[in-house]
This record gives sequence, C-alpha cells and structure tokens, in this order.
Amino acid sequence: MPILRQDVSIKEWVIIATERAKRPDQFAQVAGERRYEGSGKFCPFCPGNEDKTPPEVLAFRKDSLPNSEGWWVRVIPNKFASLVPQGWLQRRHDHDFFPSMDGIGVHEVIVESPAHDRPIPLLEEKQVEEILFAYRARFRELRDNFAWKAILIFKNHGERAGTSLVHPHSQLVATPMVPHDIRLRFEVAQEYYDDTGQCIYCVMLQKELEAKERLVDESSHFVAFHPFASRAPFETWILPRHHSSSFGNIDDAELRDFAAILRRQLREIFFALNDPDYNFIIHTAPLEDEDKDYYLWHVQILPRLTTIAGFELGSGIYINTALPEATGAFIRGANFD
Amino acid sequence: MPILRQDVSIKEWVIIATERAKRPDQFAQVAGERRYEGSGKFCPFCPGNEDKTPPEVLAFRKDSLPNSEGWWVRVIPNKFASLVPQGWLQRRHDHDFFPSMDGIGVHEVIVESPAHDRPIPLLEEKQVEEILFAYRARFRELRDNFAWKAILIFKNHGERAGTSLVHPHSQLVATPMVPHDIRLRFEVAQEYYDDTGQCIYCVMLQKELEAKERLVDESSHFVAFHPFASRAPFETWILPRHHSSSFGNIDDAELRDFAAILRRQLREIFFALNDPDYNFIIHTAPLEDEDKDYYLWHVQILPRLTTIAGFELGSGIYINTALPEATGAFIRGANFD
Repeated sequence: MPILRQDVSIKEWVIIATERAKRPDQFAQVAGERRYEGSGKFCPFCPGNEDKTPPEVLAFRKDSLPNSEGWWVRVIPNKFASLVPQGWLQRRHDHDFFPSMDGIGVHEVIVESPAHDRPIPLLEEKQVEEILFAYRARFRELRDNFAWKAILIFKNHGERAGTSLVHPHSQLVATPMVPHDIRLRFEVAQEYYDDTGQCIYCVMLQKELEAKERLVDESSHFVAFHPFASRAPFETWILPRHHSSSFGNIDDAELRDFAAILRRQLREIFFALNDPDYNFIIHTAPLEDEDKDYYLWHVQILPRLTTIAGFELGSGIYINTALPEATGAFIRGANFD
Repeated sequence: MPILRQDVSIKEWVIIATERAKRPDQFAQVAGERRYEGSGKFCPFCPGNEDKTPPEVLAFRKDSLPNSEGWWVRVIPNKFASLVPQGWLQRRHDHDFFPSMDGIGVHEVIVESPAHDRPIPLLEEKQVEEILFAYRARFRELRDNFAWKAILIFKNHGERAGTSLVHPHSQLVATPMVPHDIRLRFEVAQEYYDDTGQCIYCVMLQKELEAKERLVDESSHFVAFHPFASRAPFETWILPRHHSSSFGNIDDAELRDFAAILRRQLREIFFALNDPDYNFIIHTAPLEDEDKDYYLWHVQILPRLTTIAGFELGSGIYINTALPEATGAFIRGANFD
C-alpha cells in the first residue's frame, strides 16, 4: 500500500510508492559511471588556467598573486552568468500585462579545491571548512548590497543534477527579488508561528529527535535526518540545533561543525550509492528577513536517482521509491565514514 | 543582458539567459537518438500481450473481446501504481506532527495506439481524437467518485521526461486531496479575479493574441503560444478561447479541434527538435471547482532539453536559454505540418 505524506514546511504531499520500492542497497549507481577525465589543460577550474575564467572575486591563497596558481579555494564570476550585476531594478509591463525586468544579480562559481577529480566526500575536513568559509564570506559581502534580496548557494554534482563541468564546484546566485517559491515557504512558516508560537523547523527537528528512526547524524550544533516526507531516496536535511534564520549569521565554531557533518553525510551518500548525481541547496532567509523567529536555515541534499516527470511537474507531488526510515537505518548501519 | 520575466499565473520568475542562448535551430537532438526497439513479444502494451497488464478499464474496440487484440486505444491500471483505490481517507499524525494517509487514488495508463513505434506526431488526426476521447471518458467516470479531489492527465515521452517504456502512452492520476501546488495556482487566479473581475488566463490569451510574436497556432476553439515567461525552450501552452475551468467539460467539437491543434504542435516540436523528450500536462480544475469564473484549463508542453538543477529546485526560478519570441517565430516559419 503506497503512503501519502505531507511535508509540513511547504504543505505539499509526497507519495512513498512502496510497491515500486527497492531495498536501500539497490540504489547504488553502476560502478565507474562517473568519469573525472579532462583535467589539466582543458579545465578552466584547474590551477594554471586562471586566465580562462573571469578574474577572481575571492581566493584563499598564500604567497601568490591573484589569478595565479597557489589557491586552495577560488571564487569567480560565472563566465556564462544567468544574471549580471549591471542594469535597472525597475519592472516593466509589456502590453500592460507581462512583468519583466533586467536580469540583474550575481552568479558566482566556488571552485572547491585545486584537485580536478576530488569531490567533497574525498576532501579533508579542513578543506571542506575552507569551502564553507568562502560561501560565508561571499554571502556576507553580497548581502550588504541593497539591490539583492535573496542569495542561493547550491551545488550540482553530475549531469542528472545539471552540471557538465567535472571539476568540483558550487554556485551562488543573488537575485533582485525574493523568488516566489521562497516567499511561499516563508508564508507557511509564518502561519505556523502565528498559530503555535513556534518555528516549524525547530519543532520538526525535535520531533525527528524523538522519532529517531530517520536520524542519520548528530553533532554539537547540527542534526541530520532523512525527512518524513522525503521527495527522493536518500534525501537528507541538515538543521542547526540553535535557531537562526540565515546561513550568513553562522559563527566560526558552528561553521566548522557544519563542515564536518555535511562532509560526513556526503561521504555516506557517496559510498552508499557509488558517487551518485546530487544537488545540495542551502535554504536561507531572504536578506530582509535574516532574523525571524519562525524560519530556520537548513541544507537539503537531494540525490538525483530518478527523473522529475510529468506528474511531479503538474502536481508538485514527488513519487519516492524508498521509505526514509529504511534509508535512514541503512545509513546509520553502514558507517562508511 | 539576461531578462527576468514573471509568469503571472504562478507569480514565479524565470531567467531568459540570452548570454547562453542558442538559435532556435540549434536545439535539435542528435538524429537517431530515440530508438523504438523492443516491440512485439516483450512490450506489455503491444497487441497480443493484453494478459501482461492488469485488465483494461476502457478500450475502444470493435468485434473483439475485452483484454484481447483488436483495440485502438486501451486504458489499464498502472501495474506499478503509485496510488491504489482501496484504503482509508483519514489522515494520521505521527508524533502529533507528521501528517500522512493511505496512498489511495487511481493511476492509469492510456496506451495511445497499437503501434509500438508511432508517437502522437506520427499518428493520424482521427487516432489522436480517439486518445482524447479516452482521456475524457476516464476523467468523467472518475470525477463521480467523491473520494477523488483532483485528476492529472500527463505524458512522459523519453527518458529525460521520466519514462523508460517506449510504446507511446500517457497517464492519469486521481488524488484524494488537492495537491498544494494546484491550490496555489488557484489562489493566484482567484486573487486576480478579486482585483479585476477577469480570468487571468483569459486575459493572458487576449494579450498574447495582441502581442502576436509568441503565437504559434490558432484554431476555432484554441490558441497556442510560447508563453512570455517560458521555463524551457519551445515550451508551448494551448488555451481554449471559450472560458471553462475543466477539461472534463469539453464537448465533442472542441475535443476534435483540440486533438488537431495538440497534434500539430507536437508535430512541430517533433520535427523542429528531432523527436525530443518532453512532458505534456493538462492543467485542469480540482473536481470541486470545475465551474469557476477565474480558472481556465489549459495544456502545457514542456520539452526536456535541459536539466532541472539546484537553482531551479532551490528557488523555483527556471533558467531558459531561448527567447520565446525567437522560438515562436521559428515554429511559425517552419511549418512542418
């Protein structure tokens, strides 16, 4: 019997299709599917090719010149940016109806390490901390510009997750308005707070700690679980224990702890599923709402083992072929770390 | 300079990334990518294999027995149904927090013709009418069951669109609640109606007719265009000229006209893009709202030429690499039909 479960944070349902369910160990990719070829001369993110990208906006380096070798994390504007920093903020209405505006914003690439073939799960913990320090530094610089209303930091790993460039990198996009989707999440959280006086994500965290069966990891400052209404097998959320609406306000100790748990969970997924394609997304408050009692920033890791098809696109309801309790138990028992 | 455009029907933005834009003729798939092998003995949807599927719930046939050969459209329950008809409608709350219910509903497959290797664009118009008559018949039968709140009819064509079965088929899912996503569309439409006294989709249709540049087809009862805020290259919407909230209420003459324009637009996309993967979705009112002044049923065709990546998943904003005015002009000029 399939199960319908509601993700209370967006009020949308998911279907856990147990009839089609596989065992957790049946989701692994075919070995060797990922290929890390193409390093060196032809990769714009490899050391020595700094002139093939726009000039860096941030790099962690020692004793070396900007836009030369010697960095360990490098942030550059996206060469094929989907939004650009110059333009007008005013909206237009074509035919008194169709709203549009200049595509202004910021689109940056965070090159995660000089190593072409070493994704986050295979990096040392220290290096993952450095990546997150770069995220935070860019977030903090960009939030001071009044033109930007929201900042999204995310990662596409593999073709099914939307990237064709192999060299490990993540992306940051600042938008000149709050995406409607993010506003809707906020409305749900605000309504819950109005009704109960509590942050819905903080309550979810407590309930997951009580339920135990979907937990996969805990650290001093964070908790990781496969959410009750998981959209996909092995979907993983990481929530801070301490209420805070914005990733931008994370302190150094929390950030190091976050690096450790993020790396551990990406390692679990890497080994359990044999380096699957995945996205991760830092869900954080719009820049005018970084200090709200009703919203908790968090990370969503979404392995892309199945395809988003017509049903998902038409209804918003995802069909998941694994029980999060089963994948959670599998990850707890696997201990790949 | 990229452009930000808002889809007024869901209030979400899209980015038209002109920097990355291709010319309309550059989107075609590599020839011969689609393979229609595997017909005959091994295909459960081919004639002669009727015993490999659950018993049919509808078939158009003449002088032949149910579940035997001789049909031209056949509707069967999905063998791996994501929702099943028996169960309880009551919701539960695990740990006083996590809402769930039995996965009840209906999940059917419409086998579009006996031909294993002939997708809709290559069928005769008469056969496409028959497919749509089957959609309508199933819609009308299922809406009489009080348990179902919404019916989604959609098609996944090709692996990137979420199907692995080659034999052309579409799907129908009836859900025991209104998907939140559909409710949100309704709220936007209702708000617009409250403010203006007009159906936002009917206004959009008028504005597209005035603007002309994104139109791709017109018939007595329908208009097709590439929407102003297209999420993907060659996204196509087909809207009825006559206000009606529900596909279920379409009459015979409108249905035949709809078959003709749907087939023509699928043909255009088939030849322009060399048989690309795509989804189409019939967006229709929830079953308790089939007669609303503020909502117009319509069809969305979404070629799957690019991947839904972390940015789309995290923000709801799609990045489109083609101007709908350019793809619209290309289709108008191409005239593959």
